[in-house]
Amino acid sequence: MAREVHPRAGAATTVGITGAPGAGKSTLTGALCGRIRDDDERVAVLAIDPSSPFTGGAILGDRVRMSDHVLDPGVFIRSMATRGHLGGLSVATPEAVRVLDAAGYRWVVVETVGVGQVEVDVAAAADTTVVVVNPGWGDEVQAAKAGLLEIADVFVVNTADRPGAADAARDLTAVLSLRGPTDWVPPVIETVATTGSGVEELWGALRSHRDHLLASGELEARRRRRDRDELRAVMVARLVERSEDRCRGPRWDAALARLAERSADPWELADELLDGTDPAPG
Amino acid sequence: MAREVHPRAGAATTVGITGAPGAGKSTLTGALCGRIRDDDERVAVLAIDPSSPFTGGAILGDRVRMSDHVLDPGVFIRSMATRGHLGGLSVATPEAVRVLDAAGYRWVVVETVGVGQVEVDVAAAADTTVVVVNPGWGDEVQAAKAGLLEIADVFVVNTADRPGAADAARDLTAVLSLRGPTDWVPPVIETVATTGSGVEELWGALRSHRDHLLASGELEARRRRRDRDELRAVMVARLVERSEDRCRGPRWDAALARLAERSADPWELADELLDGTDPAPG
Repeated sequence: MAREVHPRAGAATTVGITGAPGAGKSTLTGALCGRIRDDDERVAVLAIDPSSPFTGGAILGDRVRMSDHVLDPGVFIRSMATRGHLGGLSVATPEAVRVLDAAGYRWVVVETVGVGQVEVDVAAAADTTVVVVNPGWGDEVQAAKAGLLEIADVFVVNTADRPGAADAARDLTAVLSLRGPTDWVPPVIETVATTGSGVEELWGALRSHRDHLLASGELEARRRRRDRDELRAVMVARLVERSEDRCRGPRWDAALARLAERSADPWELADELLDGTDPAPG
Repeated sequence: MAREVHPRAGAATTVGITGAPGAGKSTLTGALCGRIRDDDERVAVLAIDPSSPFTGGAILGDRVRMSDHVLDPGVFIRSMATRGHLGGLSVATPEAVRVLDAAGYRWVVVETVGVGQVEVDVAAAADTTVVVVNPGWGDEVQAAKAGLLEIADVFVVNTADRPGAADAARDLTAVLSLRGPTDWVPPVIETVATTGSGVEELWGALRSHRDHLLASGELEARRRRRDRDELRAVMVARLVERSEDRCRGPRWDAALARLAERSADPWELADELLDGTDPAPG
């Protein structure tokens, strides 16, 4: 599949939408899709669920708020569990994005829950990263703790009708203004996704950021970086695949027994398993 | 280092404490340390920050609430950024835990922020996993979305003096009671970490869970699983290390150029880089 779609990819703008569970990302994504469709552009939504390896990630699939768009052929919606995928999010996401891009979707929205590595991976896979927070979540220490200041191209304070929203937005704006000189200061947008309030501003910010990426050459730079990251991740995935057969059989069992009795540490056992008498992987 | 400490490890109980940013994990961990010290047991705290690859994770280091314990030799506190560590959280954490275990800490508390993969990794590395939520976070869909129901051995509803705490606790308890037959139903404990309220109950729950793990044979099973996961992760880390030299030089640059012009897909390029004319890694 990768081989077939690859040559045509590159026209879509990829928007990563991320934030804590319950921040309102799905509702916001649904409202954003509606707005994009008003401009008659085709949009694809990938809802990535890296959080539940045990259930296969079905829960993020009940996308009630997205049901407005179910019958619209200009909107593609798919949930994706990446946990079982070789290489995880960092391999699965760019591949899926490329397919949707090649299929002619002008905007690809990658929505995912999570704080930490997941966000970083999503940011690495997107042209524009939108971080959704809620009132009370905006204080600078928390945002910095979660690494959000560094990955967000656009901030959204959702449920802006709740107390503290203006404070959260102001705090975020203040912190962002302290960042070093840069030609893009992430806007902080207040939304109420359930009513659609602020969605127009979000859509405007996304188009502005795309224009900025194009004009500054940053789009090209980000895509080069992504290519490099992806190739690296795919190589690792291949190596893992090739080493699978070292993780079974009598030698593996013997190594585990030595590990259990603490007569060897994992690093020496790993080296023995990889070198040993078998041919090297590859 | 790994080699030296390995033979003596295995006596400590590892407690993973996780939850969203701002849930009050640091304060709770500080209060718990105080309680553990009252029983004259030695405790080590590893604060793991997987969220900020760019800053090196220094921010989680300002552990003001832990300052009570700074002068107590029975308490070890260390912040750890795992992003630069080969193999990340899943390799770094068990290694650090083993060192602390060997150094005679009876309890090792691994505190981390995050939702998603991070939690799963922490749960995989701990004997007992404590998930800290706040009022308003307890509803079943959110908890299930984040995969929390599946990894928590103990739930804490912190800031239980805020509105909605009793509701959150009741909802969680109701959902947990719906799980299939099991010999351990995760208790839901309401705490106010800043005042120490509920910390006694948390400490009780941790000891109960340890007794349960020992009596049921589950401790042994979890540690076997951890050994297997760790050995696998270390092998992958070694393979990645060995493939580093494939990710530079003229062949790598040529592959990136073909990827940029979309004349080849990452999977075929990875295979070429790994096979090619060079000897196989290892």
